[in-house]
Amino acid sequence: AVGSKVLTTDTMNPSVKKVEYAVRGPIVQRAVEIENELKKGAKKPFSEVIKANIGDAHAMGQQPVTFFRQVLALCSYPELLNSPLFPEDVKSRAGRILQSCGGGSIGAYSASQGIECVRQDVAQYIKQRDGGIPCNPDNIYLSTGASDAIVTILKLLVCGEGRTCTGAMIPIPQYPLYSAALAELGAVQINYYLDEENCWSLNIGELRRALVDARKHCNPRVLCIINPGNPTGQVQSRKCIEDVIRFAAEENLFLMADEVYQDNVYADGCHFHSFKKVLFEMGPQYSNTVELASFHSTSKCYMGECGFRGGYMEVVNMDSDVKAQLTKLVSVRLCPPVPGQALMDLVVNPPKPGEPSHATFMKERTATLRSLAERAKLTEQILNTVPGIHCNPVQGAMYSFPQITIPERAVQEAKEKGQAPDMFYCMKLLDETGICVVPGSGFGQKEGTYHFRMTILPPTDKLKILLQKVKEFHMGFTEQFS
Amino acid sequence: AVGSKVLTTDTMNPSVKKVEYAVRGPIVQRAVEIENELKKGAKKPFSEVIKANIGDAHAMGQQPVTFFRQVLALCSYPELLNSPLFPEDVKSRAGRILQSCGGGSIGAYSASQGIECVRQDVAQYIKQRDGGIPCNPDNIYLSTGASDAIVTILKLLVCGEGRTCTGAMIPIPQYPLYSAALAELGAVQINYYLDEENCWSLNIGELRRALVDARKHCNPRVLCIINPGNPTGQVQSRKCIEDVIRFAAEENLFLMADEVYQDNVYADGCHFHSFKKVLFEMGPQYSNTVELASFHSTSKCYMGECGFRGGYMEVVNMDSDVKAQLTKLVSVRLCPPVPGQALMDLVVNPPKPGEPSHATFMKERTATLRSLAERAKLTEQILNTVPGIHCNPVQGAMYSFPQITIPERAVQEAKEKGQAPDMFYCMKLLDETGICVVPGSGFGQKEGTYHFRMTILPPTDKLKILLQKVKEFHMGFTEQFS
Ligand SMILES: Cc1ncc(COP(=O)(O)O)c(C=O)c1O
Ligand SMILES: Cc1ncc(COP(=O)(O)O)c(C=O)c1O
Repeated sequence: AVGSKVLTTDTMNPSVKKVEYAVRGPIVQRAVEIENELKKGAKKPFSEVIKANIGDAHAMGQQPVTFFRQVLALCSYPELLNSPLFPEDVKSRAGRILQSCGGGSIGAYSASQGIECVRQDVAQYIKQRDGGIPCNPDNIYLSTGASDAIVTILKLLVCGEGRTCTGAMIPIPQYPLYSAALAELGAVQINYYLDEENCWSLNIGELRRALVDARKHCNPRVLCIINPGNPTGQVQSRKCIEDVIRFAAEENLFLMADEVYQDNVYADGCHFHSFKKVLFEMGPQYSNTVELASFHSTSKCYMGECGFRGGYMEVVNMDSDVKAQLTKLVSVRLCPPVPGQALMDLVVNPPKPGEPSHATFMKERTATLRSLAERAKLTEQILNTVPGIHCNPVQGAMYSFPQITIPERAVQEAKEKGQAPDMFYCMKLLDETGICVVPGSGFGQKEGTYHFRMTILPPTDKLKILLQKVKEFHMGFTEQFS
Repeated sequence: AVGSKVLTTDTMNPSVKKVEYAVRGPIVQRAVEIENELKKGAKKPFSEVIKANIGDAHAMGQQPVTFFRQVLALCSYPELLNSPLFPEDVKSRAGRILQSCGGGSIGAYSASQGIECVRQDVAQYIKQRDGGIPCNPDNIYLSTGASDAIVTILKLLVCGEGRTCTGAMIPIPQYPLYSAALAELGAVQINYYLDEENCWSLNIGELRRALVDARKHCNPRVLCIINPGNPTGQVQSRKCIEDVIRFAAEENLFLMADEVYQDNVYADGCHFHSFKKVLFEMGPQYSNTVELASFHSTSKCYMGECGFRGGYMEVVNMDSDVKAQLTKLVSVRLCPPVPGQALMDLVVNPPKPGEPSHATFMKERTATLRSLAERAKLTEQILNTVPGIHCNPVQGAMYSFPQITIPERAVQEAKEKGQAPDMFYCMKLLDETGICVVPGSGFGQKEGTYHFRMTILPPTDKLKILLQKVKEFHMGFTEQFS
C-alpha cells in the first residue's frame, strides 16, 4: 500500500521500543535545545549549559595525557617517526604498535579479538595489577569501549522464554547500559538494591532476596557488579567481593565485573580489588570454576579518553566451545577501532621509570587523580550543607548520587505532568540554572526516594559555583513547593 | 552445582550459535596457524601466506592518503597545529574538527548520532554526489564502520514470530554480515540469486520469485542491495536500480542500499548510481514514500581505512517516531569512535582545488583507483585463461568471484571429510600455495556450483604471481582428481 510506511513504531522491533537510556535521554535533548537558544541570543538566567550528566572528562576540560597523544599522532602519520619533536620512547612505542598492524598501518583491520601484542600487554598489566596471578592473552578480547564487550557477554548468556528466560541481576541504582541491553535482548532484569544507608554497599542478604524472588519467574544466570560504582561512587571492600564470589559459586551465576573505574578510588581506606584477583586468592575451588568476565575501558580513570572507544574484557573459566562462539561472534563486526586498541595498549603499558616520558606522564596522571579526589570530597561536602539533600561519600568513580527531598506538592505537580518527580526537579534545575544532571529514576532507586546523578568532572572552580547554584536552586525549589 | 559451567554451548544464546562468518572463518584460522608454523621455521612449498580473503587494502600494502593522516595526527596531538611541518589546509581542517569536539578533544564522546559538523559535511557530500538533490544532516547517522549501521537498521526492522516474522531479502552470493546479523536477530533470510550468466546482475523476476515464495512462511519487509557488489563485483545499471525501487514501492519493502564501494567502479560503461539519487529522480510518487537507508564507510574506495571503523548511513522517508527510536537506540552505545568520524569528515570533504594539499591528494587517489582498475582487469583475464575457471568481469568493488569446476572425485572426497567441496579446494590451495581465499559456500551460491572469492588487492606484481599459482594449482587439482 503506497503511502503507508513499512517501518512504524507499531511494526518495529518491540524490544528496541522498551530500551531506555537516561544518560542521554530527554534531559540532554532539552540541554542541547537550550544551548542552541543561547547561541541564537536567547536571554536566560545563565550564560552556558554545564553538562554534568555524563562521565566525559575531556568535554569538561581535562587535558589528554601527552605521551598517549604523541604516540597516537605517530601511529596516524608515521612520517613523524623521523621528526626530532618526539622523545625516543614515544617513537619506539609507536613503531612497536605499527609493526603489529597489517601492512604497518592502523588503517588495516586487526584480528577480531584485537591486536595480538596489545592483548599480551593487557595480560601483563592484569598480572602485575593482581600481584602476579597469571593472565592468558587468549582470554583477552579488545572491544569498542567497555559497552561493546558488556553487551556481547550478555548476548551470549540470553536464552529461553518465560520461566526459563535468562535473568540478569543488576545493582539498583545501575549504569543504564545494563537495563538497556537486557531490554533489547529480551532478558529479565533482576534488581538488587544497594544499601544507601551503608554508603551504597552491596548486601548479600539483598542479593539472595532478589535471587529467590526471581527464580519464581525466570532463570537467573548472571550477576553484574559495578565497582567502583556508577552512579553511586562506592568502592567495594575485599570482604564484600569474596562474599559475592561465594554467592555466585553457590548459586551457579556467571559473574560480570564492570571495573572501568579501577583507578578512580579516592576515599581513605578504600582500595580497588579486582574480582579476578580475589577469585584467585580464594583458592582453586573458586578459581577453577567461577565464570567471570571483567571489563575495562580507556574512557575513565585518569585518561578519560572516551572518544577513542577503547576497551577490553578478560574472560575466566569460560567454556572453550563458548569461547570459540564468542570469537566467531565478534568476527562478524570485523574488529574494534584500531586507534582505540593502540590507546588501550598505552594505558596498560605506560612509560616506565627511566624512560624519557615517564616524569611527565606521572605528573599528569597524579595531578588528575589528585584533583578528582579533591572534587569528590568537595562535592560531598557542599551537597551535605544543603537541607533536604543527603550525599554519601564519593569513594570512587566520577559521580555523586545524592538523595533529595522533594516536597509533596512538587511530586503532585510532576505527576500531573506525567513526569517522574526527580525528572521534574532536574528539568527545572536545567531551565533555571543551565546545570544538566540526570534524574535518579534513570538509574533506578528505591520506591519513594529521589536522587540525581552529577559528575564531579567540572574543574574545581566551576564545580564550586555549580554546587552553590544547586544549593540555591534546591532551597528555592523547596520553598516554592512547601 | 559446583563444577558445571553456567554457560555452555547447550545453554548459550541459540541465535548466536547459528551465526556464520566465512570471511574470518576456519580458512583464516588455518592461515594464521600456517603463518605461525612458518615463523617457527617450518618448511613449506611457499615462504609467506597471502591473505586474499578480506578487503583490507592497507594490510596488502596500500599506502594511506597523506592529507587524511596528517589531519588525524594533528587531531591526536594538537600541539602540532603550531608545527611548520604541515600545510595550512591540514591545520585548518584539524582545527575545525577539534572545535566541534567536546572540550576541543577527540577524546570526548560525541553526540550519539555523530559530530554535527561531520554530519553536515556528509550531507553536503551526498548532495553534490547526487547532482544537487537535497540531503538533511538530521538524516545522517555516523557509525562504527558500515557494519554497525547495517546491523542497527536490521535490528529496528525485526519483529514477529513464525509466519509474521520479519523476512529480509538478500542477494546470493552476499556479504556474510547480512546472513550473520539476520541469524543473530532471529529474522528470516530470503535469498534472491544474482544472475551469474549475466555478469551477476540483479533480475527483477528472480526478486519476485523469492518474494512470493517467502510470503508463504514469513513477512518480507526489507530488501538489501549491495552495489557495487561484494563478493560479485558487479555494478548495477541505472535501469536496474529504478526497477528495484519500483519493486520495493509496489511490494512495500524497506530498502537497504550498501554502497560502501561507491568509488570502486572500473569497467568501461559502468557508473555508480546512488539509490538516493535514482529514487529522487523517479519523482515524488517514489521520493516521498520509499523508505531507504544507504550506507557508506571509510574502509573501502581509494582510502581503505578499515582500522578506523568510520561509516555513516542516510535514512530517507523514515517515520519520525522510528527515527526517535533509532536515535535512542544508538545512544546506548554512546557514540561511534571519534577518530573514525574525523576520518569520515575528510573523506566526504577532501582538499579542494587551490588548497595546498589538493595536488598530492588527487595524485594519490587517482593512482590507487587506476591501479585497482588495472588489477581488476588482470584478475579477470588471467583467471579466464585457466580451463575449469570462469570469472565474470570485475566491474567494481574489490573482489573476483570465479566459478570453478571441481571434479566429481574431489566432491566425493570433500563429502567424506564433511567439508563443502569449495572449502576442500580452498584449504588445499592454502596448504599448497599459501594463498588464502574464501570458499563460495561462505557467501552462498547456486546449488551444485562452486566458487571462491579472491580480493584484487595484492600489489600488481604479487597479484600476477598469485594468479599464476592459482592457475597451476587448479590444473594440478583437476588432474589429481580426474
Ligand atoms: C559503569 C560503566 N560501565 C561501562 C561504561 C561504558 O564506557 P565505554 O563504552 O566508553 O568504555 C561506562 C561509561 O560511562 C560506565 O560508567
Ligand atoms: C558490502 C560490504 N558492506 C559492509 C562492509 C563493512 O565494512 P566496515 O564495517 O568496515 O565499514 C563491508 C566490508 O567488507 C562490505 O564488503
